[in-house]
Amino acid sequence: MIHFLLIDCPDEPGLVYRVTEVLYRHGLNVLRNGEFVDRHDQHFFMRTEFDGPCEPEALLQELRAALPPTARVRLRNDQPRRIVLLATKEHHCLSELLVRHFFGQLHAEVLAVISNHDTLRAITEKLGVPYHHLSAEGLSREAHEAAVLTQIEFYQPEFVVLARYMRILSSEFVAHFPERLINIHHSFLPAFIGASPYAQAYERGVKSIGATAHFVTDQLDQGPIIAQSVIPTDHTQSARDMAQAGRDVEKLTLARALTLVFREQVAVHRNRTIVFE
Amino acid sequence: MIHFLLIDCPDEPGLVYRVTEVLYRHGLNVLRNGEFVDRHDQHFFMRTEFDGPCEPEALLQELRAALPPTARVRLRNDQPRRIVLLATKEHHCLSELLVRHFFGQLHAEVLAVISNHDTLRAITEKLGVPYHHLSAEGLSREAHEAAVLTQIEFYQPEFVVLARYMRILSSEFVAHFPERLINIHHSFLPAFIGASPYAQAYERGVKSIGATAHFVTDQLDQGPIIAQSVIPTDHTQSARDMAQAGRDVEKLTLARALTLVFREQVAVHRNRTIVFE
Amino acid sequence: MIHFLLIDCPDEPGLVYRVTEVLYRHGLNVLRNGEFVDRHDQHFFMRTEFDGPCEPEALLQELRAALPPTARVRLRNDQPRRIVLLATKEHHCLSELLVRHFFGQLHAEVLAVISNHDTLRAITEKLGVPYHHLSAEGLSREAHEAAVLTQIEFYQPEFVVLARYMRILSSEFVAHFPERLINIHHSFLPAFIGASPYAQAYERGVKSIGATAHFVTDQLDQGPIIAQSVIPTDHTQSARDMAQAGRDVEKLTLARALTLVFREQVAVHRNRTIVFE
Amino acid sequence: MIHFLLIDCPDEPGLVYRVTEVLYRHGLNVLRNGEFVDRHDQHFFMRTEFDGPCEPEALLQELRAALPPTARVRLRNDQPRRIVLLATKEHHCLSELLVRHFFGQLHAEVLAVISNHDTLRAITEKLGVPYHHLSAEGLSREAHEAAVLTQIEFYQPEFVVLARYMRILSSEFVAHFPERLINIHHSFLPAFIGASPYAQAYERGVKSIGATAHFVTDQLDQGPIIAQSVIPTDHTQSARDMAQAGRDVEKLTLARALTLVFREQVAVHRNRTIVFE
Repeated sequence: MIHFLLIDCPDEPGLVYRVTEVLYRHGLNVLRNGEFVDRHDQHFFMRTEFDGPCEPEALLQELRAALPPTARVRLRNDQPRRIVLLATKEHHCLSELLVRHFFGQLHAEVLAVISNHDTLRAITEKLGVPYHHLSAEGLSREAHEAAVLTQIEFYQPEFVVLARYMRILSSEFVAHFPERLINIHHSFLPAFIGASPYAQAYERGVKSIGATAHFVTDQLDQGPIIAQSVIPTDHTQSARDMAQAGRDVEKLTLARALTLVFREQVAVHRNRTIVFE
Repeated sequence: MIHFLLIDCPDEPGLVYRVTEVLYRHGLNVLRNGEFVDRHDQHFFMRTEFDGPCEPEALLQELRAALPPTARVRLRNDQPRRIVLLATKEHHCLSELLVRHFFGQLHAEVLAVISNHDTLRAITEKLGVPYHHLSAEGLSREAHEAAVLTQIEFYQPEFVVLARYMRILSSEFVAHFPERLINIHHSFLPAFIGASPYAQAYERGVKSIGATAHFVTDQLDQGPIIAQSVIPTDHTQSARDMAQAGRDVEKLTLARALTLVFREQVAVHRNRTIVFE
Repeated sequence: MIHFLLIDCPDEPGLVYRVTEVLYRHGLNVLRNGEFVDRHDQHFFMRTEFDGPCEPEALLQELRAALPPTARVRLRNDQPRRIVLLATKEHHCLSELLVRHFFGQLHAEVLAVISNHDTLRAITEKLGVPYHHLSAEGLSREAHEAAVLTQIEFYQPEFVVLARYMRILSSEFVAHFPERLINIHHSFLPAFIGASPYAQAYERGVKSIGATAHFVTDQLDQGPIIAQSVIPTDHTQSARDMAQAGRDVEKLTLARALTLVFREQVAVHRNRTIVFE
Repeated sequence: MIHFLLIDCPDEPGLVYRVTEVLYRHGLNVLRNGEFVDRHDQHFFMRTEFDGPCEPEALLQELRAALPPTARVRLRNDQPRRIVLLATKEHHCLSELLVRHFFGQLHAEVLAVISNHDTLRAITEKLGVPYHHLSAEGLSREAHEAAVLTQIEFYQPEFVVLARYMRILSSEFVAHFPERLINIHHSFLPAFIGASPYAQAYERGVKSIGATAHFVTDQLDQGPIIAQSVIPTDHTQSARDMAQAGRDVEKLTLARALTLVFREQVAVHRNRTIVFE
């Protein structure tokens, strides 16, 4: 079985040598290896993809012994991640993920879709995923978030993905999912933080629009960026035209970010991501 | 001789018909034609490139008679524009423009380079352009700007181009050059307004960096955007690496913007540009 | 109702004036207008999008009277086009089109999917479109094509789209659908014509891969190109990795090409397309 | 002093471990490390950038002892490479390299420019580089190549760069510079091999044009590709317009390829490149 090993620790000489020594001694077949040293912080990052009969407990123990005491070591197999999707009314990101899931191309099992509207029930259920409509009407934000949280927790997902979920989440909600809550923002962050980024982009007269997939933190649109893409626009596009044109870049940017996260290609350090591609 | 005609006015039916009727009657050979209606403002824009024996006065008079009274009509021939470049220490944008100028590919005559440092004298003079070093040392901003302004006015340029000029200009200075002062900002505006955009980009952990060419107004980095481009970056690049990688996109974005402006392909309306490509 | 007018004819002075005069006289509201003159062939192209009460017969008659006798004039309203999709086993292009269709974003009514395999029945039927499995096993190419043709003709589509249909079509088949048969080829044509373009790309060691949407003619992969896109690749990608990475660019390139064609933004002239964007 | 180490050999377990063990024992400070295994050929590639007091002979001896007998090991310091440029009449690639060289940003010392025309003498000499005009008029290809070769050999360069040199070189000439002769081809190879690629691109009606930097081998335009880029084009561009638009992508693609090669980031294997970025 294939495993992904993700390590980070303060940099010091010989780290690659020590890690690869352990893997070599265990007879593991390294498929891909990547290292990175953040010179600014003197911090070391390493990702290894290996095949072979792995005894996780023994391996982790030896790796920890070979590394500085503050090292973080993450070892996961390549089983699909368990995820829940949140959506509102726009279908493009949700459909993209559901279709990939339907054909086994998402590296994840979509356990359920939760939405504050009933609009996307048909596509979700046709593609074989349970749909929960939890309306926010007449509820306080706290009450609605509590309902959503209860529904999520029922499924015990590893990750929660905001596939154009149009409600701002409280810090309390976000705190349940550290580095496990992923959003797609429909602008090239940090440009156009907050609501209606395409309207802002139109108003400013920019010549490119974009999308940003990021981990959600308690600072709105300020979490670590996983992936970004842009496409050209021009004066002929209204804010509405931009929103239409932006759909494709949003859905692909989100799908790419999820692939990176689900295959343990993303480390987070000081609100920035190290992405092993 | 080739002429460029640029028209804008409130939209109403039959404008294209009326303009082309005048051109047809004058026996002019239309090479390219572009129209755009801003639906939001109900405002009409048209650019025409034509060849043939043109009597400017008569033509303008008839065009104005055919158009609404508030129409703006601009008619220019395709002679090179007269320009002055301002620079500081970084050479890449300046070199790009000087080399194009040297080979007659800038659609402009570079009358002079003015810099607050002496660093770029050699490349400028080798490529046949006068260089004026106007140091800001020991001078108030007002006094330095007055010196720069005097030197610019000596040349009577049509446009002034900031080719990585690293001083912030006062509103008074800017007011001398409405829609005639062009800057290259080394970020994808409106992200990272102000100083050290690459340092800001590194800190934020973005996955793309960019450049923005824009007309300068009295609002810092807020003027009408003419052209923007982005290139990918990642966690391996320090702020300094980004600055190096960004040079190429900066110089090409600025050169492209100038070509558009010098060939009358850019109209400005409510702090946005309409670009006829 | 919105109409699209597409005109082409040998160039001569005054054509824009004459066309806009007719439209103005009919009181039509021009939404967008585009003209292009191919200087090489001295051929004129014009596309107009207009709104208002249109009497097609009278309008066409007057336009033809105002234009050279060999002019081609095409007038269509903005009703969804009637189309049939052909596919084989790969789902990504088909799914993309079916999802857009499901949400009314394809500018077309998908009448049916026809495939030489049964693999994609589930996604097609779940998304509400009839699926016809016409196996080629044990049939001559002629016999299989005859069966496919009969099935297509049952639906009387305006366009037939090859959404990764993996069989080469005979000239006889192609001749039934002049400028009405659209294919997505998984390379940046004319590089890698024919079978297994990703294997060819891997072998050649290219640094970018791409996709090409084109009208099908009787010359394999030589028809007029409607849209092309590329994405970077590198030495780390096997032919199989490239094929996976290429899916997204294929499906978006095909979807974009169809939008252009269905909204009458594409004229064909001497095996090249003029695309009004 | 910084050194670049480039290794390739048949893959086997423990290679990274063995190499990093040697470097660790020598007390060298690894700045960047990259590994790649070509699964198709079971071939291993590794590039390491390190700092520290290096004894090349001892280090190479120990590395060779630690590696399979057929391993290729290349160790170079980061001194500028010695290069000669060949050009014809078009300036854009040559100017780009000369300006970078003038400001010390090419990672190379340009020893001379050799051209079959005298057109580019001024820019070359102004930027401080000797210019040799070796006309081909009245000479056989053999005689002209012999003259060029003699001039090149006078300078003993490590690399020869064809900066839009418009003559086809014989296999005999090419054989003098294995993996040391770099060309920029003005198309997205393998599309439009041979002469006048922009004319071919116009004729075919492609929607993107590009540039390819590659090592020259005795097969015309078939050598290992180092870097490629594309830009969009459309029906409005004539072959001449494409050639103008293509200049920027050509010069940047060539400059990027040279940076990669000069910093030992490029390995060649079976006519493909492995590029460590």
